[in-house]
This record gives sequence, C-alpha cells and structure tokens, in this order.
Amino acid sequence: MAGAKGLSINLATVRQQFDLQQACEACARQGIEWVAPWRDQLAKVGAAEAARIIAGSGLRVTGLCRGGMFTTDPNAIDDNRRAIDEAATIGADHLVLVVGGLPAGSRDLAAARQKVAEGLAAVLPYARAAKIPLAIEPLHPMYAPDRAVINTLAQALDLCSALGEGVGVVLDTYHLWWDPELLPQIARAGRDKRILAHHISDFLVPTRDLLNDRGMMGDGVIDFKGFRHAVEAAGFTGPQEVELFSHDWWGKPGDQVIATCIERFNAFC
Amino acid sequence: MAGAKGLSINLATVRQQFDLQQACEACARQGIEWVAPWRDQLAKVGAAEAARIIAGSGLRVTGLCRGGMFTTDPNAIDDNRRAIDEAATIGADHLVLVVGGLPAGSRDLAAARQKVAEGLAAVLPYARAAKIPLAIEPLHPMYAPDRAVINTLAQALDLCSALGEGVGVVLDTYHLWWDPELLPQIARAGRDKRILAHHISDFLVPTRDLLNDRGMMGDGVIDFKGFRHAVEAAGFTGPQEVELFSHDWWGKPGDQVIATCIERFNAFC
Repeated sequence: MAGAKGLSINLATVRQQFDLQQACEACARQGIEWVAPWRDQLAKVGAAEAARIIAGSGLRVTGLCRGGMFTTDPNAIDDNRRAIDEAATIGADHLVLVVGGLPAGSRDLAAARQKVAEGLAAVLPYARAAKIPLAIEPLHPMYAPDRAVINTLAQALDLCSALGEGVGVVLDTYHLWWDPELLPQIARAGRDKRILAHHISDFLVPTRDLLNDRGMMGDGVIDFKGFRHAVEAAGFTGPQEVELFSHDWWGKPGDQVIATCIERFNAFC
Repeated sequence: MAGAKGLSINLATVRQQFDLQQACEACARQGIEWVAPWRDQLAKVGAAEAARIIAGSGLRVTGLCRGGMFTTDPNAIDDNRRAIDEAATIGADHLVLVVGGLPAGSRDLAAARQKVAEGLAAVLPYARAAKIPLAIEPLHPMYAPDRAVINTLAQALDLCSALGEGVGVVLDTYHLWWDPELLPQIARAGRDKRILAHHISDFLVPTRDLLNDRGMMGDGVIDFKGFRHAVEAAGFTGPQEVELFSHDWWGKPGDQVIATCIERFNAFC
C-alpha cells in the first residue's frame, strides 16, 4: 500500500464506528496526517479537549464541518460565530459552510439565496478577526431543496467576489463533477485565490439514497485524476479530503474503511 | 374544476394503468386536448394505428418521447431516424431527445458530450427533411451518469447554436428549477427561438428514488408560476406537459391521476 500523504479523512466517513479519539488514533495508526471533524464530534468532549485529542494523535485539521444553514436556522449568525470559535480552537484551516436549503414551505429560491448572501456578510467580519476562512461548499443540485441553495461553483465564486476577503470555496468531486462549466470555473477559482479545500467521493450508479449512498473512489463514475489535475493547475496542492456519507461503508469496520480510502486514493486520485 | 385547456398529458404519467387507447380516451373524457406518447406505446399497435387512436380521440400530440441515447446505443442514428418517422406519422410537434449518459465503464464526460453533438449533427438533416424539430431535454445533473450528459439549459442552448436550424429545447421544471442561471437562460432560449416544450412535475422532499419519485405539482418545492411567467415572457405559450414518473401515482386509478393533474395545473401552474 502506498502512503497516506496528501489525504485527509473527513470524520463523517467513520462516524458510526468511532468516536473522535478512536477515529484520530485509527487515522494516525495508518499514517494519515489530516482529519476534518464535525461539530457534534467536538461537542461530545468540548472543543479544547478535541484539540488535545487531535494534536495528541499528531494530526492537523483541514476543515471543521460545518457552519452555514443561514436560510433555516433562526440563530444562524450566533451559531456560525460559535463554529468559528471552535474552528480556531482546534486549529482548523477553514470552516466548511453548508449554506442551507429552502425554508419549510417556501418555494422562493431567489429569496433563500439572498438570505445566504446576507448571512455570510453578517458572519464574515467575525471570521476575518478570528483568521478562519469561510469555505462555501456548493452542493449538488439535488440538495437545493433541503441543504444548500448554492449549487454551482460559478454561483459560489460570484458570491465570494461580492463578499471580498476571508471567504472561499470547497471543491467537492461529488457535488461538482457533472458541471459543464467545471474546468473554467476551477481555473477561475484559482485565479481568484478562492480554493480552500478539495473533497473526494464517488457518484454511484445506481444511487439508492440521495444523501447516504456516496461511493468510495473508484466505485462510481467520477474522473478523479482529471479533477485533481484541474485543481492543481489552479494552484491548490493541499490535501484531498475523503468524505463518505454511506450506509454501506458505515457498516464496515472503521480500520478497513480508512485502509480502503488510502488504497483508493492512491489508485484513483 | 377549471378546464384542461393548455395542458398536455405525457402518457408516461399513466403508463402502468392504461394502454394507448385507454389513455387517449381517458384524457379526452376529461377535456384534455394534447398528449405526448412514448415509442413503446406506439410500438404495441404500430405508429399508423397510434395516429388513428390519438386523432380519433380528438387529441393532438406535443412531443413524441423519445429519441437520443447517442452515447450508449450503437444503432442510435438509425433508431433516431425511425423515431423521426414515427413522430411525423403521429403528427407530433417535435421529437424529445434524452441524449444518453456515460457509456458503461466510462468516466469521460467530455467524450460523451462530444458524441452527443456528433449524433445530433448526424440525425439533424433527416429531421429537417421530415419537418420534425429535435427537442433536446437537459436533464437534472443527477442523471448525468446514466441518462443524459446535457445537464443545464445553457449547455443545451450552446449545442443548439452550434447545430443551427431544426433543433431546440425542452424546458422541464423538474430538471431545471434549481439552476442559478435559469431565468437569463430561459430568456436566451426565447430570443434564440429554441423553446419547443414546457414540461411540468414537482421535486419532492424527500425524494426517495432518483428516477421514479417525481411529484405532482404542488406537492414539492418548485415555483411553477414563476417558471411559467419566465417561459411566457420568452415567447412560448404552448401547452404545459405534465410528465410524472412516480411509483406512487402509477399505483392510483388513471382517471384520478388525470383529474389531479388538471386540478393541480389550475391551482399551481
């Protein structure tokens, strides 16, 4: 097996198998250098203790998942500020934002998108002061109703341009691979210095569950090397972060899942 | 109940309940003036007999579904020519094209998209001679792997511009509602005189099946009136065609499904 250098494990990938300490130890044992924890994983031990667990395992943090939800959480601004604090406490490179879908009963996409822009603008000064970049993650259009009304890279980059410094994007293969504008928009993201993260997981055929049937790299239809070349040509050479929401993989032993991530990363990405 | 004027029933909507004759009679009984049959429904009786059944019920045809599949069917060109003949036989306004997804085992989206462009160019002279416009249907990005690698209206319109006369687009709420570029691209489609059809169905939350869980208008998140206003402002005032692939609605009596289509069309569209 080749090495795990350049790979980050998003800890949602093994959330059913491991708590934070177990996940970090398992990653470290297999030579992983980066992880991306979720806030509920931090909440169980407190952010300061989480920081000790992560650093104590010799790991660094790509992103903290997640802030956002500007459209549906009435306390979103306060909650995002707390998320920024937590990201700073654990030394995260950035805070990942899932911006929120349509509010219950609403069919007004334009209003929801406006609310996202306003929420980001409200949180951004706090993020700048904390030196935690906000990483907008454009999600696949199938998540527009209930998770994120930012659905293309172009749309996310337009938002970044309007907001100024301190905000960038997550480039996630699963969400973006289908976009006819993908390559020019990745190049633009590089020119604009907006690339904060590069997430990987595969799109399965058939996909049996809209949320929790993401594929291990190599099991689906995504050309990871092509995506990676575009990202690297745009100037981003940070870790690739594998993030699998998958009932299938949650059902396997965590050590096996991490080993497979490393193996497939080396073979396909 | 308000009238059914301006509504077309895509016969996939009642394909489990009715054969072609039953479907046409049921539509006519409820005042429907337009239908859109599928080729397998034609094949059971032959296109000439299908034309007699449809006209005999006093119905006209919006689109024939479907041609396309340029990326996966080795006989796609011949098959599309046959589809054009069938469309002419039944007096269809246009032939709907689902262009095809990635070939089995391929991860090369760019190559698949190129093959679609070449297939369209190969079929187009035959379509022009038959005076059957080819209607490219951009499908939701979740269908890029296995059904259509044309996934945005902008991409479809770029293709139309490259191909010239005799080709246009289907504007389907289900496939396009999420697109941040939707309104300007609908306006562009109007300016370019490319709008051939306006399909309606709703996006449900949750969506439990990627293919066969489309929603009746009003049951999901789509703003049909906003979509319709954009389409009409772009100059298209043809029928709205309801097309439901839905295990739920296939399980109900066909007359009830058609009545509900009419009722919801009047209430929400």
